[in-house]
Parts: sequence; C-alpha cells; structure tokens
Amino acid sequence: MRLVCWRCGFQTEYRPGLYTCESCGEPLLVDSDFRESLRKEGTLIPQELRRVTLGEGKTPLIKSADGIYLKLDYLNPSGSFKDRGAATAVSEALSRGCRLVIEDSSGNAGISYSAYAGRAGIRARIYVPYDAPLGKKNLLRALGAEVVEAPTRDEAARLAVSDLEGCYVGHRINPYFLEGMKDLALELVKELGEVDHVVCPLASGTLLIGLWKGYKELVEAGVVKRIPKLVAVQACGYESLTKYFKPCLSVCRSRAQLPDGIRLMNAPRLLHAAEILKETEGSYAVVDDDLVLPYLRELWRGGIVAEPTSAYGYAVAKELVKSGSISGKVVVVLTGNGIKHVSGGMTI
Amino acid sequence: MRLVCWRCGFQTEYRPGLYTCESCGEPLLVDSDFRESLRKEGTLIPQELRRVTLGEGKTPLIKSADGIYLKLDYLNPSGSFKDRGAATAVSEALSRGCRLVIEDSSGNAGISYSAYAGRAGIRARIYVPYDAPLGKKNLLRALGAEVVEAPTRDEAARLAVSDLEGCYVGHRINPYFLEGMKDLALELVKELGEVDHVVCPLASGTLLIGLWKGYKELVEAGVVKRIPKLVAVQACGYESLTKYFKPCLSVCRSRAQLPDGIRLMNAPRLLHAAEILKETEGSYAVVDDDLVLPYLRELWRGGIVAEPTSAYGYAVAKELVKSGSISGKVVVVLTGNGIKHVSGGMTI
Repeated sequence: MRLVCWRCGFQTEYRPGLYTCESCGEPLLVDSDFRESLRKEGTLIPQELRRVTLGEGKTPLIKSADGIYLKLDYLNPSGSFKDRGAATAVSEALSRGCRLVIEDSSGNAGISYSAYAGRAGIRARIYVPYDAPLGKKNLLRALGAEVVEAPTRDEAARLAVSDLEGCYVGHRINPYFLEGMKDLALELVKELGEVDHVVCPLASGTLLIGLWKGYKELVEAGVVKRIPKLVAVQACGYESLTKYFKPCLSVCRSRAQLPDGIRLMNAPRLLHAAEILKETEGSYAVVDDDLVLPYLRELWRGGIVAEPTSAYGYAVAKELVKSGSISGKVVVVLTGNGIKHVSGGMTI
Repeated sequence: MRLVCWRCGFQTEYRPGLYTCESCGEPLLVDSDFRESLRKEGTLIPQELRRVTLGEGKTPLIKSADGIYLKLDYLNPSGSFKDRGAATAVSEALSRGCRLVIEDSSGNAGISYSAYAGRAGIRARIYVPYDAPLGKKNLLRALGAEVVEAPTRDEAARLAVSDLEGCYVGHRINPYFLEGMKDLALELVKELGEVDHVVCPLASGTLLIGLWKGYKELVEAGVVKRIPKLVAVQACGYESLTKYFKPCLSVCRSRAQLPDGIRLMNAPRLLHAAEILKETEGSYAVVDDDLVLPYLRELWRGGIVAEPTSAYGYAVAKELVKSGSISGKVVVVLTGNGIKHVSGGMTI
C-alpha cells in the first residue's frame, strides 16, 4: 500500500498517520494492488483495511416509479454511507495502535466513527458544531463517544485536528476513509453494468471522490469501459464548488437549513472534486430547501426513509431528468437514514 | 398457492382476504411450490408475493467477540425484520385490489406496513396503543400513514379488525406476512450452513414461525438436514408462552418497560409457536429490563444500534451460552433499529 498525491505527483510508502502531501499539502490517495484484491477477494479494498466490520456495504438498489435507480446507502449499519469509509479508516487506525480516534463531524461521520471504534474496542471523541441535530448528538453518546461541542463546523474541524491525545482520523482528508467508498462503484457495476449518471450530495467530497476512484480502478482493471458522469449536489448558501465550476442547475433563493450533511464550506478535497467533475464531464447543481422539501416528502410517502441531505440528490436527479439535461441510466445515492431526524426518547 | 391449517388439516385454494381456518379458527399457512421457487428464483417466497419491494432481506451477519452470530435484521428498509413480511403481505393485498391497508401495531409492524403501502402507492391506517414510543408514532406520520390511538395494544387490535373501510392485513394472523419471513432461514443457511440455535424475541410469533416454516421447507427440499433449535424470548410481565411451556431461564423481578415490541399477550398464533418449540426441541426464556439493560448498552457500545426488544434476544443468548445451556453455532436475530428510540426533530 502506497500513498500518492493526485496534484503534484508526490509518492511514498505507507506511513502511519500521514494523510497529506509533504510537498504540496493536498490530501493523499492510497495506491494499492486493486486488481489483485478484486480477483482474489471480490473487492477493491486492500486487505489491511478490512480488519473491522459491522457488515457495511451491499445496500439495496431499487427503482423509482419514473425509472431512476436509488442506492439505499442509508441502510448501512450506523445509518449512512460513511460506514464504508469508517470501517477502513478505523481498520488503519487500529493497525497502528490507536486506542482513541478523533473526528470532527456534523453528525453522520461521527456516528459512523463512534460505531466502528466501538466495534474495534477503542474510544472515539467527536467534535461537533453546537447546532448539529440533537438526535445525532444523542446517538453519538449512546454509542459511547465523547462529544465535544464547538461554535461552528469549521471550528469543530480546527479543534479536532489540534487534539493530540488520540489519532485524528478526519474523513475529510483521510486516504483510508476514501478507500472504503470504492466498493460502492463495484456494487453499482454488479447491479447495473455501465450507468450514465450518478448523482450525489457533495460536502467533503468523500462520496464523489471515492466513487470516482472506485470506477477509475474498475476501468483500469477492464471491468467497465468508462466512469459515469458524476453530478455533485450542494445546498444554497454552501455552494463551495462555484469557485471552480459553473452549476448546470441553480435554484438558490434562501440559505439551506434542512440538509445538515452538506452545510459545509472549505472542504480540503474540494479542488480534487472539481477536477474530477471536469475530467469526467460531470456537472454540478445548487438547490434550496423550498425546491427539495416536496421531494423529501415524496421519498417518505414512498417508504424511503432518507434524510434531507439525500433528498437534495433525489430532487436534483428528478429536476435534471425532467428537463432533459441528463438521461439514460441515472443513479442517486441516498446517503443518510432519516430516522435519525424523526424520533425520540431512549437513553442508553 | 393454497392455504392450510396446521392444526385441523383444513385446506383450500387461495381466497382473497381469508386468513383464518373456516373449520377451527386458527390462522392459516400458505402452501406453495417452494421447491420450484427455490430452484428457479433462489427464494422460498412465491412469485405472486413479490410484487412490492424496498430491497428487504439480505441483511448483514456479523460475529460478536464471544462467537455468537448476530443477524442484523434491523437494517431492513424501514428498520425492522417486519419489512420481510410487510413486503409479501402488501403484495398480496395489492393483487386483490386493496387501496387502503389496516394494521394494529405497537410500532415496527405499522411502520413497515406504512412504508410498503407507500411504495405500492396505496394508503395505510395504523391502530397503535397510546403508549407506543413517540418516535415510532412520528415515523408512521412521516410515512404518510393515518395513525389511530387506542387505550391498549389489545384494543388497537380489536379496533383494527373491525374497521371495514380497508383491507385488514394484521401481521399476527396474515398467512402472506409469514411467507416473507422464510428467506431469513435461507439467508442463514447460505451464510452459516447448519446452525444449532436461533434465538429470537417472541410476541406475535411471526419471526419464530416464519423461521420454522423457512427451515422446514429447506429440510423438505433437501438443502439442510434439520431445523435449528429455536429459543423464544419473552419479557417479564408478558410471558404468554408459560401456559404451554416451561421456561429454561426465568429472571422476572419487575414488569418490563423497555421492549415495546414484545409487551403483548394473546397472540393468535401462540399455540402454534408453542407446538413448534416442542417439536423442534426448542426452549423459552423470560427476562426483565434489569437483566437486559447492560446487554443493550454492550450492543450499542460495540456499534450495534439495536432496539431494546432485540437486546432481550441478545441477553438470553449470552446468558444461555455462559451457563452452558446452549452451545455450537448460535444466532441471535436483532429485530429492530434502535435509532427509532434515540433521536428527535424533523417533521415531514
């Protein structure tokens, strides 16, 4: 397992705790013998990153009434796609002797890290913005994590990075977290063959970049011919990609409140996400709560208990298909379980 | 597809809306060509019961630190094992033209029916006891169901049966609901081969009887040699099986509050459940909240977000393994997602 920088070409052998490029500062990527893993184990994920599992992945794929494929990644063990990455990131942390993992999170990533740290028998400390949904904070505590509240999402990130008591495993820069995302591409290929568009919400970019990396390796391994055109979805008021990329759809009348998973600016991998969108002829949409709310309701009324951030992706897919901007086989990744938002009561 | 009575031997061709035996009143069982389904489609479920799906089944199986297998059936689409049965029951209701399904439920079954009715594009009306967890009632409403509160669980059942506006699909007596449970046995066989014990909470008996029926058909099809010994778990104060069967473990100091899924007496299929336990040399345990709470915490601290009812099964499995009462390959079915209990906020 090696580490490489997509930007400046820096390369190094695996080194415990090294996440960012020593030359240009960009978060690194893992370079592994994925052909071997795929052939022998039926996965793109390196063996050394598969030590801890709660049964993540292999989530259901269903079809909406109008033919859009919905990948129900919110049915991962702790209720979000982040479980794929937390499994591999905690595996790496465990292999270098970490007994306390530290993360900053608006919710799902922290819940996921807490669950996998618990599974590995180690501790988790999660820095969250004080306005993270109460249900998510309750879940963190029920999972045994230590919760530290910060004034903002960015301040939570700053505090987590400078906490030197444990191993910072931040999903926004962690190369091993990204590795766990790759099998999402493999599953889609097994389920659907070649697809035309994959629509996903974008905050830190782990989903988009992980999907791209998975597809890129599958192309290199000769399993598929091309990477689908990826569609990144952001929320009004948090449209960090606009400095790199012009949106193909922009409905932005008021600052988004609903989708706590994508209310984030300044993601360290943002430049890479923008490059990937350009390279794969992908596109980018910014929408707001008013546009998304009826789609969220439509999902739930159809039995699909996705959280608001996921409904952002669904809304954009529906709008782009309706307007003819995208066509063919379209997949939306539904990222988080909405049951975390609707509920209440038990203390563990 | 035929209907049969396990008790008196009554048989009839499929008739829309017929759930109970015309001769002795016992809830009926489906008799289908499961060998054909298994060979052609890789499922025990008759084709006509697979019209509506949200991707239920194929849930993860993981191993606890002490070697007990945990079937994470709470990772079904709406957050409980009941999705397996609601999928087939709603399929049957749809095939006979129902536009409104009616159910009585302490929570999970209602949530499941609401989700699958939504998926099928029809309405759901759910009768619940007023003390059902608030989070579960919120979920029902978010899924678009009409929620009717009754003074008790038994009264909810009585009201639902006498509501003639729609199709009563009650999971407690519905033969088509049971059919959906069978593939849980098939999955366990694929994952583990022959197992020695399967531990599951018992209220209405759908899980235990569905598992038994699945295993029985797999034995008849020559896939496995024997049905595992089933262990039914009930909660202190709701030990309805004691009139038929002596518990192998009884820790009952105070009436259970935690496990809303098994706080139920008078299940219509109880006699059959007791017969199955005898026939398969199974066993039966009654425990209370004090015994279970540390196990619930242990599950969560290990990243397993199961609800209290599921922890009842886990606690009994651990206690019986510890005392040497059961050994070999032991599986616990974790039935409901605990995220429904811990959380709060979003209105849809």
